[in-house]
Amino acid sequence: MTIRYPNGKKYNPSVPAAKKKTFAHSFSNRGKSLEDELNDTNEYYLANERAVIHKKPVPIQIVNVRYPARSAAVITEAYFRTPSTTDYNGVYKGRYVDFEAKETKNKTSFPLQNIHSHQVLHMKHVIDQLGLAFFIIHFSSLDRYFLLPFEQFHPLWKRMEDGGRKSITLEEMKERSIEISTGYQPRLDYLQAVEQWLQRERIDQDIERQEKA
Amino acid sequence: MTIRYPNGKKYNPSVPAAKKKTFAHSFSNRGKSLEDELNDTNEYYLANERAVIHKKPVPIQIVNVRYPARSAAVITEAYFRTPSTTDYNGVYKGRYVDFEAKETKNKTSFPLQNIHSHQVLHMKHVIDQLGLAFFIIHFSSLDRYFLLPFEQFHPLWKRMEDGGRKSITLEEMKERSIEISTGYQPRLDYLQAVEQWLQRERIDQDIERQEKA
Repeated sequence: MTIRYPNGKKYNPSVPAAKKKTFAHSFSNRGKSLEDELNDTNEYYLANERAVIHKKPVPIQIVNVRYPARSAAVITEAYFRTPSTTDYNGVYKGRYVDFEAKETKNKTSFPLQNIHSHQVLHMKHVIDQLGLAFFIIHFSSLDRYFLLPFEQFHPLWKRMEDGGRKSITLEEMKERSIEISTGYQPRLDYLQAVEQWLQRERIDQDIERQEKA
Repeated sequence: MTIRYPNGKKYNPSVPAAKKKTFAHSFSNRGKSLEDELNDTNEYYLANERAVIHKKPVPIQIVNVRYPARSAAVITEAYFRTPSTTDYNGVYKGRYVDFEAKETKNKTSFPLQNIHSHQVLHMKHVIDQLGLAFFIIHFSSLDRYFLLPFEQFHPLWKRMEDGGRKSITLEEMKERSIEISTGYQPRLDYLQAVEQWLQRERIDQDIERQEKA
C-alpha cells in the first residue's frame, strides 16, 4: 500500500532507507563533517609524507583585545571576514594544490549558490599559474564524494553567469569529476583521485600529440 | 679624531650615517611594516599574473559568538592560537612557494628565537614534497632584505639545537642568502631573488653532472 502526503508525493518510511545505507557503506562517515574528514585525511597525508596540505584559518577582523594580567590575551570584539581564497592549499609532489570543499543534502544536483565568485576568480588565477585547483563535493544524502577539477567546473559556472541553470546536475558531476572512494585510512583519499585526473590529462595530451603527428 | 667608548669600540656618529642611508636608498620603506610591504608586493604579483601568493589569516580559537538581530555576528570571546605553519604560501609557475617573514632591529645578526620549531618542521615537510621554502629576513636598522632558502637556514638551526650560537650573523646571512633589491613596483621583488636562487641551483646541478660525466 502506498501512503501519500497531502501534496501527492509518496511517503517513503525513513527507517529501512537508513538501514540499507548502513549496510551498503561500511565506512559511512559516522556523523563527521566534511571538514573533519578532510582534516583527518590531511593529517594522514602529512604523517605518511604523501603531501603537505592544510586548511586555512577563518579570516577574522579583530576590533578589541583585552590583556588580563597573568593570562592570555582575550579577543573581546571581532567579526568574520569574507575569505578571498579557498579553504585548503598545499604541496603534493612539488605541485601546488588548491581546493574548496562543499557539502549538499540535495540528491540530484549541486546548487552553485554554495560557491562565491571571489573563490572562482582565485582558482582561475591558480590554474593560470599552473597550479592544481578543484572542488571536493559531498552529496551527503547519497554519501558520495566527487573531485571536480576547476577546468571542468568553469563552463558550468559560465552557463549560470550567462543566465542558465544555477546548479550542476548529478549526471554532469559524474561525467566531469572523479569519484573519491572512501576508506578508513585515509578516510577520503582524494589524492588518488588527483592522480587519476593527472593520468587522464597525460593520456589526452598523448592523443593530441599523436593526432598532430 | 677618533672618539672611543669605554670598551674601546670606535664611536660612529649616527647622523651622517642616517643621511648617507637616505641618499643610498631612495625607495626606503617609509614606515611600512614588512607585512604591508609583502602584501603590496603580492598584490602586484597577482595583478601582473606573476604569482598567486597570500598571507594566511591568523589562527583564532573562537569561544563565544553573539548574533544580534539585523546585524553581523559578533565574536565576543576568542583567543590567539599558535600557527602550525608559515605565514605565506602560494603558487609561482606551477611550483609551491612557502615562506615566513621576520624583522630584526639588530645590525649584526638575526636572533633565531624569532623562529618557532613547528615552523621549521613545517618547512622541512614542504621541501620533502619538493616545494620551495624560505625566509624573508629584514634587517630594519640596515634597511636590507634577504631571502634565505630553507636548505641554507637548516644547518644554522641545527647548530643552535646542538648547543651552538643562537643567531645567524650578518656575514653568514650574506653568504647563504640572496639579497632582495627594493624598488617601487613591486616594493620587494622577492621572486627575482627566487629566480636567482633557482638559477644557482641549476648551475650547481650542471656542474655536478659534468663532474660525473
